[in-house]
Amino acid sequence: MATKLWEKETTKTPVWLEEFTVGNDNILDLELAEFDVIGSIAHTAMLAETGFITKEEFASLKKELNLILKKIKAKDFVIENGVEDIHSQIELELTKKLGETGKKIHTARSRNDQVLLDIKLYSKHKIQETVLKTETLFNTLSNKHKQILMPGYTHFQAAMPSSFGLWFGSYAESLCDDMEMLYGAYNVVNRNPLGSGAGYGSSLPINRNYTTEALGFESMNYNVVYAQMTRGKSEKVVCMAIACIAATLSKLAMDVCLYNSQNFGFVTFPSHLTTGSSIMPHKKNPDVFELIRAKCNRLQALPNELTLLINNLPSGYHRDMQLTKDILFPAFKELHNCLFACVEMLKEIQITKNILQDKKYELLFSVEAVNKLVENGLPFREAYKLISEKIDANTFQFDGDINHTHEGSIGNLMNGEIKKRFEILAVKFKQNYRG
Amino acid sequence: MATKLWEKETTKTPVWLEEFTVGNDNILDLELAEFDVIGSIAHTAMLAETGFITKEEFASLKKELNLILKKIKAKDFVIENGVEDIHSQIELELTKKLGETGKKIHTARSRNDQVLLDIKLYSKHKIQETVLKTETLFNTLSNKHKQILMPGYTHFQAAMPSSFGLWFGSYAESLCDDMEMLYGAYNVVNRNPLGSGAGYGSSLPINRNYTTEALGFESMNYNVVYAQMTRGKSEKVVCMAIACIAATLSKLAMDVCLYNSQNFGFVTFPSHLTTGSSIMPHKKNPDVFELIRAKCNRLQALPNELTLLINNLPSGYHRDMQLTKDILFPAFKELHNCLFACVEMLKEIQITKNILQDKKYELLFSVEAVNKLVENGLPFREAYKLISEKIDANTFQFDGDINHTHEGSIGNLMNGEIKKRFEILAVKFKQNYRG
Amino acid sequence: MATKLWEKETTKTPVWLEEFTVGNDNILDLELAEFDVIGSIAHTAMLAETGFITKEEFASLKKELNLILKKIKAKDFVIENGVEDIHSQIELELTKKLGETGKKIHTARSRNDQVLLDIKLYSKHKIQETVLKTETLFNTLSNKHKQILMPGYTHFQAAMPSSFGLWFGSYAESLCDDMEMLYGAYNVVNRNPLGSGAGYGSSLPINRNYTTEALGFESMNYNVVYAQMTRGKSEKVVCMAIACIAATLSKLAMDVCLYNSQNFGFVTFPSHLTTGSSIMPHKKNPDVFELIRAKCNRLQALPNELTLLINNLPSGYHRDMQLTKDILFPAFKELHNCLFACVEMLKEIQITKNILQDKKYELLFSVEAVNKLVENGLPFREAYKLISEKIDANTFQFDGDINHTHEGSIGNLMNGEIKKRFEILAVKFKQNYRG
Amino acid sequence: MATKLWEKETTKTPVWLEEFTVGNDNILDLELAEFDVIGSIAHTAMLAETGFITKEEFASLKKELNLILKKIKAKDFVIENGVEDIHSQIELELTKKLGETGKKIHTARSRNDQVLLDIKLYSKHKIQETVLKTETLFNTLSNKHKQILMPGYTHFQAAMPSSFGLWFGSYAESLCDDMEMLYGAYNVVNRNPLGSGAGYGSSLPINRNYTTEALGFESMNYNVVYAQMTRGKSEKVVCMAIACIAATLSKLAMDVCLYNSQNFGFVTFPSHLTTGSSIMPHKKNPDVFELIRAKCNRLQALPNELTLLINNLPSGYHRDMQLTKDILFPAFKELHNCLFACVEMLKEIQITKNILQDKKYELLFSVEAVNKLVENGLPFREAYKLISEKIDANTFQFDGDINHTHEGSIGNLMNGEIKKRFEILAVKFKQNYRG
Repeated sequence: MATKLWEKETTKTPVWLEEFTVGNDNILDLELAEFDVIGSIAHTAMLAETGFITKEEFASLKKELNLILKKIKAKDFVIENGVEDIHSQIELELTKKLGETGKKIHTARSRNDQVLLDIKLYSKHKIQETVLKTETLFNTLSNKHKQILMPGYTHFQAAMPSSFGLWFGSYAESLCDDMEMLYGAYNVVNRNPLGSGAGYGSSLPINRNYTTEALGFESMNYNVVYAQMTRGKSEKVVCMAIACIAATLSKLAMDVCLYNSQNFGFVTFPSHLTTGSSIMPHKKNPDVFELIRAKCNRLQALPNELTLLINNLPSGYHRDMQLTKDILFPAFKELHNCLFACVEMLKEIQITKNILQDKKYELLFSVEAVNKLVENGLPFREAYKLISEKIDANTFQFDGDINHTHEGSIGNLMNGEIKKRFEILAVKFKQNYRG
Repeated sequence: MATKLWEKETTKTPVWLEEFTVGNDNILDLELAEFDVIGSIAHTAMLAETGFITKEEFASLKKELNLILKKIKAKDFVIENGVEDIHSQIELELTKKLGETGKKIHTARSRNDQVLLDIKLYSKHKIQETVLKTETLFNTLSNKHKQILMPGYTHFQAAMPSSFGLWFGSYAESLCDDMEMLYGAYNVVNRNPLGSGAGYGSSLPINRNYTTEALGFESMNYNVVYAQMTRGKSEKVVCMAIACIAATLSKLAMDVCLYNSQNFGFVTFPSHLTTGSSIMPHKKNPDVFELIRAKCNRLQALPNELTLLINNLPSGYHRDMQLTKDILFPAFKELHNCLFACVEMLKEIQITKNILQDKKYELLFSVEAVNKLVENGLPFREAYKLISEKIDANTFQFDGDINHTHEGSIGNLMNGEIKKRFEILAVKFKQNYRG
Repeated sequence: MATKLWEKETTKTPVWLEEFTVGNDNILDLELAEFDVIGSIAHTAMLAETGFITKEEFASLKKELNLILKKIKAKDFVIENGVEDIHSQIELELTKKLGETGKKIHTARSRNDQVLLDIKLYSKHKIQETVLKTETLFNTLSNKHKQILMPGYTHFQAAMPSSFGLWFGSYAESLCDDMEMLYGAYNVVNRNPLGSGAGYGSSLPINRNYTTEALGFESMNYNVVYAQMTRGKSEKVVCMAIACIAATLSKLAMDVCLYNSQNFGFVTFPSHLTTGSSIMPHKKNPDVFELIRAKCNRLQALPNELTLLINNLPSGYHRDMQLTKDILFPAFKELHNCLFACVEMLKEIQITKNILQDKKYELLFSVEAVNKLVENGLPFREAYKLISEKIDANTFQFDGDINHTHEGSIGNLMNGEIKKRFEILAVKFKQNYRG
Repeated sequence: MATKLWEKETTKTPVWLEEFTVGNDNILDLELAEFDVIGSIAHTAMLAETGFITKEEFASLKKELNLILKKIKAKDFVIENGVEDIHSQIELELTKKLGETGKKIHTARSRNDQVLLDIKLYSKHKIQETVLKTETLFNTLSNKHKQILMPGYTHFQAAMPSSFGLWFGSYAESLCDDMEMLYGAYNVVNRNPLGSGAGYGSSLPINRNYTTEALGFESMNYNVVYAQMTRGKSEKVVCMAIACIAATLSKLAMDVCLYNSQNFGFVTFPSHLTTGSSIMPHKKNPDVFELIRAKCNRLQALPNELTLLINNLPSGYHRDMQLTKDILFPAFKELHNCLFACVEMLKEIQITKNILQDKKYELLFSVEAVNKLVENGLPFREAYKLISEKIDANTFQFDGDINHTHEGSIGNLMNGEIKKRFEILAVKFKQNYRG
């Protein structure tokens, strides 16, 4: 039977109900432990500042909280069997040590604003980590095999010449746009909900500005009803941003799996990074990229899952919100694993050279031929018609050089500009990063 | 039979195929007409600058394009029966007037980068309009009945005192966070894809920087493969931001419908804004807010619909992308309608006074009573226990005043701060707004 | 201003509100016209049977309703400007002709159960049409190029020999499983909601059994609260079944687009069924299959859209339900178009022969070689190892025949069994089909 | 390092890759253990029947497999550290005991068809369990407080008289319709994929009919390519059916939470089934039903998640499919928990009597009054107008009895018919149920 802060007496809560309502919280809440302590230090500092506790009480609370923080960082902290959640475990430990003083930490605070705060601090931290891991992938992508040509496709049809530089670089730039949405989400979570209580504030004259500054937030969630309304909503926008990065990874993975097929043969991987078959002795399957694709496709389902969870609930807290942790926390972990796996695989990707010499790619050069005529003065539509006729008559040939020079083309990748954009974005997230 | 730019001869395309592939483009494309012309002016200016057409050719093209723009603004422009799309219609009109010169406008451009450009200019413009319409709602919300008290709920249970000021203000602040995600989307669409051709650039030495500046973009989509990859992706992130605003409206609408029920009775509307029943003579139904909720819930389905449309497609254009217009364009229209309807309804909302005097709300004040004991020195947990016992013994009463003073609470709404945040956000979108 | 059944006097409903609430109903409702009349005939027959109207009143109502039905079938019926919906239009016409008698048709009926009935009759009819159109595709698929070999893939890697017979047949069998879900949906819609009124029945002693039999339903939705609860729910399960068929088409379309690529080259289409490019003169793009894929992917988004629309609404009618028509009606149309387009394209698909002679498919036969050793008595694991070593040493060769004989394999497609299963399923839907 | 069936030598697979690819399989696969053994017994029986192994070999394999089955049922079976999956673990144990004979069990079988078979047997079994648990809820619902009146709502507005009998009964009937979709899914999973190998069958002359009968399937998945195509698809249709039941539970839970609010006060629960608040001493929150709603809303997200996972993948196995277990297995568990919790709560639900005597429900009876006039001969539209005028003049009163007699109304719930329908449906699932 879990110890509950709000329990009035020994009730006869049935075991099934206990299990049904507590869910995975004793595992999930460990992710929040660090942030819960940090929040409690700021909250008690504010209580001391505003006179709800004495300076001495604050000093002893702070000392104990820092000891707990150390235990957490050393992975020594557990939520004891029978304790409902992280908040109860910490209050329990404080009360054991400090008696009445320990009980005072819940003054002017509800579990609602406490967990809201924890999730915001957690989300901010995980977003910052995500930026760092994305930057590693970005750097891996933007330095790959720039000059080697490959076919470019439209409608799955061989279309025009492309290059590995263009292909890898496109995913690097895609990550820049993903950072824009992530920064939107960051600006949503970077607000302090502490002090909103159960969503209707407190009659105690607390100082929310104090905790906002102490915790390094951009501002507070001003309106206390809105602060509560961000539960579920902030997780959703974070998952939208996660879904954007996941979409980039998933698309890259699809390309890789396709180009690794015998029918393309553009990229291969060393055997130790591929997987065999239980019945076909010749197989070297690109399972890692298939799983990156699959995992990232599941990640893309999350914003909708959160919408289904919270949609059409009127304002005010509902217990439904408890389940958002179950969605958000594994999402960061899975995304980070995929980013890591992607980097590791790309480090060892092997590129095929001279792909375009295969006869099936000959018509890739038809636009080059058209443009050459255009440069010699023919209107585009006429040039197009002329080359069409040659193709139909099977007499088309192209043996000129490929010379694309404009911004963003084969010969002028603009990787420097793209990198600059990424770096300017990345630095915006770095305020107050806890390493 | 539609006239197609790429058609080589009179082919025997079956009618069903024509209808199946063209879809609604002749209607949807009208939304793009203005932006298509603006893009073509910038493109031809660049062609003149780089020497692909003469200054004189540019002058006459610009003149004709401006005439077409006038026709579009006067709603005089149509896509003629049998013309495939907006791009063909404009090229057709230019060629009728200017002969060979008209045909040159497609030099170094593909329909792919042309429609990408149109959609980005359109999206940017519609986002800017959305900000203005959201601002109107924001202003309507933040000035409503600030002092009047109402019950605050958690778990659908009467919980603590709240106020109409808090309630309306919470939705105003919600719109601030929505603007963060909208700004993320704005930063994604505010990039110039023109010059990326069919996704692999051009062998012609065009100047993409020129059109980027001429069209007022923040930067170009540098990498041409990435420029093409934004098709579908940019629509998706825009729909994510639309879904955020829609979620705020939907939640507000749910609250209103609930509070308008006889079982709450917090708000009512004049008869002419309600709807009757075909069998129940007493009904005054809040259909407008039900439909705001419903329409906004459909809007929240769009990011997932776009994900399903484009997911697991390898890089390079696929015809599937054509359908994104069918999703994005009605979305802006529906959202704008909902924002408008919401403002009109809120203008006439009628608020019930003295709600809290009903006996069923008596226990709302239990936390006030607890806190009063805390302020007199009792540890919170003790105070909580004392009041609990009174409630269980049915002897609880509270007749003190409600005096919430901290930031964001009943007595200190912080509407000024919230407004300042909204305004700072809104101004970021206003660069190059075309009115 | 629309004429509304429930309007008490000339109210000053604003125009925007009119437009916002009526939506597309005057177009969408035409799809329901036929079913509305059929329902009204059954309802008035019941009213006569139970004595609420006279036999003579019924006779004249039935005559007029049949005239309206004729007009509808001749596409002569319109919802007049200013009339709110199909139900009002029909009642209006009856009242013009029959005076007081016309007004009696709404006795013991609400618009709620009326539209519920219309949607169920409509859905049942459209499901029946869907079965017929799916059967046409089924028959097209199961007769295609049975003997010609092609590579079979796993992980996008060439894996084992397959055949066009297997490939096409797999999609035929997929449609069988889709029929199972469609039959589930059919059994949900094949229930009579008429008589449930606004969701709480009527104090009038009507005979719901009478209309249930007259309209050919399997049973009634017994409980009147549940009858109302099927609004939205029945549309959702129908869209789930539509999504199943759409998933089959989408997957087939993906295969076709891929196999039509130069990198596979397994299938091609005559030029008049492909599309060119505005800049690349050599392109023959498989746009029809790309759009089948795209449209079917959008169809797969619908169950979720409906879930978002109706989820977390408590029981009882909400105006939100009005929007389900906007989702369901175009879905049937789009699905039918895709089925048709798919059949037309498959009729002219061209198959490449001798694909497997290409050296890149040599290792496809490794399992054959393993199995040959197994047939000669080697344990499978040993045989696998032996062939592996040959492959690694580049000495693998296979020149035996392919002789797959078991059920469902290359040499024994079981198309007869699959067809039998489809036919048994199809016949279950045919009860009371109105042609 | 996991022992892999297909591994040729000691490779240097990195640890991260191992973890990234194996995922949760060693836990998830335990759910499949029983079905894997059952499948292996049928498969080896067939191998003996067709001569690939001897009768003696079969006898010893069967004996060992039955011993393993016993261990599984006694929860004594584990997947050892370093063993890749359930299939490898079982083969390992057989080989330890039986040497060469153990290795033969993989003859003419791939892990692909093996896991396909396991998932189908598992799904069939879990669907059967679901029917039983749903039946318990059905029975709980259809016997609740039949006669007691409550308000019926439309648009959240008090509309007409309803009753607890109608309300509970509506959810019972809802479960009937859900069984229709579940039966559709059952008919999809009740097909034997064994013998389809990796999706392209086998050159060995196996007898798929034999295993189909031995395992009690309705038929086989005939076409081997289609058999493989059901991976992901069958999980999706099962999740669609799960989502239908979940939607019913979620809606019921929403009603309960609302009706438990002080503003309705229709139902309450004993204290030991409610939850308190950490700051509000008066709270008794209906957390169980909030969590039923929330968990069932998450379940409703699963069909879309599966669609995102498998959509736009061409035919043939992809490693992405491995993740379907991670979605499907917890779904059954969560649904079963919710069904159980729902039953436990409903057993103790407390109903408020005499609700309709509250003045705010007076107008509920307006339709009764209208209908009374209709029964006395007035046309409906006239009666409606008359009562409307009384309501507007505040002179409406109704003191007649409520006498609803038609099928499915307050006075004639038709619970017997509904129960009959449920039972007829339930019995269809019971073939070959393993208890």
